[in-house]
Amino acid sequence: MQKIEHLGIAVQNLEESEKLYSRLFNTEVYKREVVEQQGVTTSFLRCGVNKIELVSSVDSKDESNVINKYLSKKGEGLHHVAFAVADIKSEMARLKEEGFVLLSEEPQLGADNKLVCFLHPKSSGGMLVELVQNRNS
Amino acid sequence: MQKIEHLGIAVQNLEESEKLYSRLFNTEVYKREVVEQQGVTTSFLRCGVNKIELVSSVDSKDESNVINKYLSKKGEGLHHVAFAVADIKSEMARLKEEGFVLLSEEPQLGADNKLVCFLHPKSSGGMLVELVQNRNS
Repeated sequence: MQKIEHLGIAVQNLEESEKLYSRLFNTEVYKREVVEQQGVTTSFLRCGVNKIELVSSVDSKDESNVINKYLSKKGEGLHHVAFAVADIKSEMARLKEEGFVLLSEEPQLGADNKLVCFLHPKSSGGMLVELVQNRNS
Repeated sequence: MQKIEHLGIAVQNLEESEKLYSRLFNTEVYKREVVEQQGVTTSFLRCGVNKIELVSSVDSKDESNVINKYLSKKGEGLHHVAFAVADIKSEMARLKEEGFVLLSEEPQLGADNKLVCFLHPKSSGGMLVELVQNRNS
């Protein structure tokens, strides 16, 4: 893995959290994006070579939404960590061989024009890990 | 803030977790260090310009230990995120002015020969944030 691509932070109210994290990181949100497939809206801030992704549900009343489930169970805060990889398919194969549980057999389309795959937190020490590869690379 | 300096991951059994995370990141632990002041043993792995810090209690039976408390409440997983800053005192002053709650009035000595200060997670969206500055800088 090449670096931490981004931290994913689960938030209840995206606008309020954008203000909070802008003050924390002393920088502005540079992009807001809906990821239809996951039912979330994401906002991005930069922290040097790393990024911060605020993740909120598109519908706060949808109990099946992954972020709503997380918020009702654990509250706001760190949700996942994404690591940049050069070749997501070979990294998925390596991790599967090592006994980690992948949440999809094939890379999915994620925010920020990336190919992504999540690992089950039970196989990765309680941490929800996302692999991300640029679609152009 | 300059970048994510490290992710702090709370673990129960340091030796087992060192093996798990070595397999996850496909790299070896390069340092193990006791931080007396916090009652923890830390192990470090590299992920490009970022680091992963596994944090375990020096005494699993000490109920007052910060990591034991965390493990009994939330289980293993993401514990904190540390951000590199050039000048920790001025960043602490800026954040205090912005309404964030600092857990110490002065920088403390942390792992890896750093000056550190934590922010109260209630003031930073549920995320335990650590500021770190190299002691030499």
